[in-house]
Amino acid sequence: MPADIDFYFDFASPYSYLAANRINRIAALRRRKVNWHPLVVTALYQANGTPPTPTLPVKWEYVRKDVKRIARNERIPFREPPGYPRILLTPGRAMLWIRAVHGDETAVLFARTCFHAYFGDGVDIGDVDVLAGIAAGLGVQKDALLAGMADDAIKGELKNGSTLAFQKGVFGVPFVIADGEHFWGFDRFPLLAQWLSRGRKGPVLDMAA
Amino acid sequence: MPADIDFYFDFASPYSYLAANRINRIAALRRRKVNWHPLVVTALYQANGTPPTPTLPVKWEYVRKDVKRIARNERIPFREPPGYPRILLTPGRAMLWIRAVHGDETAVLFARTCFHAYFGDGVDIGDVDVLAGIAAGLGVQKDALLAGMADDAIKGELKNGSTLAFQKGVFGVPFVIADGEHFWGFDRFPLLAQWLSRGRKGPVLDMAA
Repeated sequence: MPADIDFYFDFASPYSYLAANRINRIAALRRRKVNWHPLVVTALYQANGTPPTPTLPVKWEYVRKDVKRIARNERIPFREPPGYPRILLTPGRAMLWIRAVHGDETAVLFARTCFHAYFGDGVDIGDVDVLAGIAAGLGVQKDALLAGMADDAIKGELKNGSTLAFQKGVFGVPFVIADGEHFWGFDRFPLLAQWLSRGRKGPVLDMAA
Repeated sequence: MPADIDFYFDFASPYSYLAANRINRIAALRRRKVNWHPLVVTALYQANGTPPTPTLPVKWEYVRKDVKRIARNERIPFREPPGYPRILLTPGRAMLWIRAVHGDETAVLFARTCFHAYFGDGVDIGDVDVLAGIAAGLGVQKDALLAGMADDAIKGELKNGSTLAFQKGVFGVPFVIADGEHFWGFDRFPLLAQWLSRGRKGPVLDMAA
């Protein structure tokens, strides 16, 4: 059985949303399991010494348009969600608590539903009641979730997740590590798919065909 | 006749080299002419307020590997050239002077030859004698070129080129503007090709196939 692959993302990141739409399919077709790692990309920016993209007007204007055209091309529903762009801590905390208590499968379903609600439907996943509602649909009890999200251990796990990721070479999101090979950005998913199918000896992939 | 497209690049940028290998073919297949604009990417970084990628150790390590695997995939010869990474002003100045005196076709040939010499063969194109040698192969007289490169007007043209590009939304290289649509990075060339072929109504391009 080939090794699991690691998928690093931030719920606030639109390219992470696009990647979250595809990563499990790409991996499953190549018989790989995906480990989903929520983190806070602003912590990576700090560690890396770079300003957050939304603070750079010219680049941010480009990114806003680029996300929309890629979503259109990929036929992934996308709208700019409320308060976009913003820092989101609560969905990551909720996911980590759900994983600890209800297992990985439920946690990943929760994460995918959050992404679709936020970037697909414009639902405010910064609101803990919204998160609790999404979780309730997966059989998670609301009060326990809210208490769990406020737990210092869960808060610390999300924070440490960013630090540990950066130590492994993750400097942005989405980011995938497979067999030690690093893939930054949704635009590296064709290379990732090729890597998972064939490794270094893969066929030529003509990006400019 | 459809409008020309604008290609912004820095001779020091490895992704610009990859793009320079493909841009004219992509455009010619769609009956477009390419205007080549040399600039100095460190000026864009300054204007944008971001640190140069080679000063970010984690990201730079990723980029070094990423360039190599893309070059391998695309079957474009690549080696890390002498003194890499570094700031290069002289090839851009030489190209601009050659364009002014010998015309655009010779200038683009010169640029492509410089890129291949530097990133394909590891030749030091920061050396003005090397540049003069490349230019001589295109019928450019050495002393006139060296005098031209030292001209303040040519130096200013390269500097202003970066400023003007940033004003148009160019915040990194390689960068292409076609019909007002912006494409940053060699990894957007499939989208560029689709755009040139069909415009916004193009077919779905599945990046994660």
